[in-house]
Amino acid sequence: MIIAKTVAEMKKARNALKGSVGLVPTMGYLHEGHLTLVRRSKAENMATVVSIFVNPTQFGPGEDFGKYPRAPEVDLEMLEKLKTDVVFMPMPDVIYPPEFNTWVTVEKVTERLEGAVRPGHFRGVATVVNKLFNIVRPDKAYFGQKDAQQCVVVKKMVSDLNMPLEIVIVSTVREPDGLAMSSRNVYLSPEERKAAVVLSRSLKLAEDMIAGGEMNADKVREAMRSLINREPRAFIDYISIADGATLDELIEVKKDAVISLAVRFGRTRLLDNMVVK
Amino acid sequence: MIIAKTVAEMKKARNALKGSVGLVPTMGYLHEGHLTLVRRSKAENMATVVSIFVNPTQFGPGEDFGKYPRAPEVDLEMLEKLKTDVVFMPMPDVIYPPEFNTWVTVEKVTERLEGAVRPGHFRGVATVVNKLFNIVRPDKAYFGQKDAQQCVVVKKMVSDLNMPLEIVIVSTVREPDGLAMSSRNVYLSPEERKAAVVLSRSLKLAEDMIAGGEMNADKVREAMRSLINREPRAFIDYISIADGATLDELIEVKKDAVISLAVRFGRTRLLDNMVVK
Repeated sequence: MIIAKTVAEMKKARNALKGSVGLVPTMGYLHEGHLTLVRRSKAENMATVVSIFVNPTQFGPGEDFGKYPRAPEVDLEMLEKLKTDVVFMPMPDVIYPPEFNTWVTVEKVTERLEGAVRPGHFRGVATVVNKLFNIVRPDKAYFGQKDAQQCVVVKKMVSDLNMPLEIVIVSTVREPDGLAMSSRNVYLSPEERKAAVVLSRSLKLAEDMIAGGEMNADKVREAMRSLINREPRAFIDYISIADGATLDELIEVKKDAVISLAVRFGRTRLLDNMVVK
Repeated sequence: MIIAKTVAEMKKARNALKGSVGLVPTMGYLHEGHLTLVRRSKAENMATVVSIFVNPTQFGPGEDFGKYPRAPEVDLEMLEKLKTDVVFMPMPDVIYPPEFNTWVTVEKVTERLEGAVRPGHFRGVATVVNKLFNIVRPDKAYFGQKDAQQCVVVKKMVSDLNMPLEIVIVSTVREPDGLAMSSRNVYLSPEERKAAVVLSRSLKLAEDMIAGGEMNADKVREAMRSLINREPRAFIDYISIADGATLDELIEVKKDAVISLAVRFGRTRLLDNMVVK
């Protein structure tokens, strides 16, 4: 396994790879969700590159960039076991040299949900992903459905800028009780961890209502809200039922709609979502 | 010579090219300046792609998008003679489909000179050039020094976003009397055309002053201004002596400084520049 720390090292490693290349962009502190992306890339490509980079530009001023969990040694061990070909692990100034001044902005689909709560977040995401795609030049890149809006934004950027690769979205991996895997779950106290199951339970409730014929989006949102509000540790940021491509909020539930929510537990913000079948 | 009108046609033509590929992005209405770029690309690459696209997003509301000169048949004849391999000639909605929403913004170097006079201009330039690079995937792309700030912006975008290609800047081609070639020269009345020689004459004056040891940038700017103001048809937008990489205005002339100016003749705005040796 090659560990590249500079752009030049990564480009050299890339040029030595033969056949199709898959990229799994991560912020490290890997869990089973990331490993599933790596396995999928391994199955679909001749070679797999994993990037580990806690991207400063997608964190707002009051957010958790400094304390975002990091464990590079453990990450590398996991990736080695999966026979990852290359790990790209740059320092921040490799990606953002002092005179860096170019930004990729996806408008409209970034204005709502996470984009409304975290101004500038998706500009940071789009810019770093654009750079990673240019450095690694993958044939396919793999993203987890857990960050539903990020998936929409990355696919829109690739389509709008005609980037020559395919984006593959992989289903969310969950803990046995239903909690979506996330590096930020480590922030939860034992009580918050137990309470956090309410996100996936509210999605299950929505799924059951829709399976039972409920097409009124407000009724579904309200049922979810009422379920979550019964959990005293949970504070809802938003509950959304939106068009899967535009993220416009829906009046009527439809196929491929994305039901997503952000809920705070103390200082920890958790996301989850499902796509309507 | 293949003429590609859609992204799919262009990608197909690109995949059939062998060896290194040069791209010459143009807005058509080709003159000797463009043809020099094409010849240079031919000399340095196995195959050459020329794009012809009058990019609506780099024109402001009051600008000349609608009346920008177009002569696609003549352009194609010229490119055929030079044995161009592929011409990419998309319609605006091929590049900007209705739901298009992603922009590439280069900050700072776009704030002054053309960027100050034409807000949004360089966002349009950076975005369309980014897309052309992703569609054509050239090894090298060729730009004329005549649009000095555009050269700086494109190089900065490529460097900041780690785009996998080299930008080649080619010297300005001039008419016998010194006027820099530009598709917009066609707008000039015979009297304005004669008066327009004042741009290159003012640059020659600056060159002579600097060769004579004048390093005070303000003295050079003032001498240029005074020369141009003696031409009653000429209205100066700006005269700049700036750092070649940052475009910060200089107090002292130095090597690689860019002396650039924009001057209006009636409704026609002309640019010219020189790099200090």
